[in-house]
Amino acid sequence: MERFGARLQQATGRRGPLCVGIDPHPSLLGAWGLPDDAGGLAAFCETVVDALAEEVAVLKPQSAFFERHGAAGIAVLEQTVRAARSAGAIVLLDVKRGDIGSTAQAYADAYLLAAAPLSVDAITVNPYLGFESLRPFLDTAREHGGGVFVLGLTSNPSEGTGLQHARVAGADSGTGDPSTGGPSTGDPSISAAAAVLASVRAENAVAGAAVGSVGVVVGATLSEVDLASAGIGGAGLDVGGPVLAPGLGAQGGTAADVSRIFGSVIEQVLPSTSRDVLSAGPDPAALRSAALWQRDVLLEAFRV
Amino acid sequence: MERFGARLQQATGRRGPLCVGIDPHPSLLGAWGLPDDAGGLAAFCETVVDALAEEVAVLKPQSAFFERHGAAGIAVLEQTVRAARSAGAIVLLDVKRGDIGSTAQAYADAYLLAAAPLSVDAITVNPYLGFESLRPFLDTAREHGGGVFVLGLTSNPSEGTGLQHARVAGADSGTGDPSTGGPSTGDPSISAAAAVLASVRAENAVAGAAVGSVGVVVGATLSEVDLASAGIGGAGLDVGGPVLAPGLGAQGGTAADVSRIFGSVIEQVLPSTSRDVLSAGPDPAALRSAALWQRDVLLEAFRV
Repeated sequence: MERFGARLQQATGRRGPLCVGIDPHPSLLGAWGLPDDAGGLAAFCETVVDALAEEVAVLKPQSAFFERHGAAGIAVLEQTVRAARSAGAIVLLDVKRGDIGSTAQAYADAYLLAAAPLSVDAITVNPYLGFESLRPFLDTAREHGGGVFVLGLTSNPSEGTGLQHARVAGADSGTGDPSTGGPSTGDPSISAAAAVLASVRAENAVAGAAVGSVGVVVGATLSEVDLASAGIGGAGLDVGGPVLAPGLGAQGGTAADVSRIFGSVIEQVLPSTSRDVLSAGPDPAALRSAALWQRDVLLEAFRV
Repeated sequence: MERFGARLQQATGRRGPLCVGIDPHPSLLGAWGLPDDAGGLAAFCETVVDALAEEVAVLKPQSAFFERHGAAGIAVLEQTVRAARSAGAIVLLDVKRGDIGSTAQAYADAYLLAAAPLSVDAITVNPYLGFESLRPFLDTAREHGGGVFVLGLTSNPSEGTGLQHARVAGADSGTGDPSTGGPSTGDPSISAAAAVLASVRAENAVAGAAVGSVGVVVGATLSEVDLASAGIGGAGLDVGGPVLAPGLGAQGGTAADVSRIFGSVIEQVLPSTSRDVLSAGPDPAALRSAALWQRDVLLEAFRV
């Protein structure tokens, strides 16, 4: 199977650099006049997939909103994933899984094997238990043409307690570009986020493809100062693979922000929005228009 | 509803301080002569619950092994949880979820609300996005008598990349006991694991119950040196709530190790084993014997 990085690049080249999150929040079900149960969830997802899966490059269902409804919700997730992929969308399932050993392998098998009921193109993963704890995800994805997006930096330092800002020994950060935009403090340590990005960069370098299949998640709501303070500003964002940037739209990031902040990796950034598009529903034409408008704004901003 | 901390203490007082993990690994299904599908999974779990749920204080299903089988696997998980709770066991679902805002709330609702299809007594959570990102889990658990176990320290420092060993500013570690057993280096920073334990301790202190309902996960395979190097040795392990210690048995920790290393919090430690008990199956009597033997060894070791 073709590698995920190449497939993603083709999809965004054809359809534009946009990811739309499928976040069936109870309040959104209510706004659409749907009950907060598995039936409402199914109707919601069917409408979103019908309206968007033939137009948008990447759809990103958020697992939590399906898990709320137990097995019946997961059945809707299975159906949603299948329908979206059949219509030509790449499906990135937002599950943020992370575990060790055979449990990490079980999660990888659950989402990255073609034969699995919940087989998707890519998933998000959590590196808290150590980047090497993600090895089963990385290996399974590589063997089966899938993608993995590792949580990098999602909150700004002023929010305080995020372990993404913890300091780790910088010994193996040498695999990255030295000009990471971080402040020069004489401190040999680097942020946990910078260490994660360095590990992803090394992983993509070893794989040796033109476009890597291991991505990172870096919030679209962060400022240049936030990125610089975590030591991942400018060229430091280049991990040789895709950069998922959630938070576009209702959460505060604009296309111009994304274009400016992710300018050094503009070919690889995948901005993600959800509320702004979904709240245009339930009319399918309005949903589609909202998504295509957002895509066109991004294309315009990225051209500058 | 009675608080989780009190319910857990009553259960371990009556049944002994043992948690048995339900990890239906494909190799284990094979060893039991069962197919690696939802039917095999259901037969496996039914046997385990029938054999153990009336005897063991806590059963801990590992979500990954159910997610592998999609919606059909989650239906088995629903049934397993219901049956185990009906038989009087406390169910701690090992999901290691972590997210922000309304997504974290959706995960909390999925597992900690009584009306949810997958309602359990407690879950494990991942603090990578910041301890405060766990607020929806903590609040929902408190309101509904549930428990939350936050990943603390699961790997030893020599394994290297674990962000649990990253250093964070130690400013708010003052809520804990100063004698945390860590080395005195003049460095004002503390390990991420120590910061997590301090936050859990503060959370339990605010709740003000005799036994807290917010727990931590600290590996039973760690040595005193590992804990001291992370600054959580000795009294530092006391978070005013339960300490789940996975890795007993096949993974290397013995009852004597647990008794020695967790001696300062022996009333609160909940050792967890899985492979050692499950590999005694599929004979229900053998399964039960293996669990009760493990429990008795722990009771003996803890008495010393």
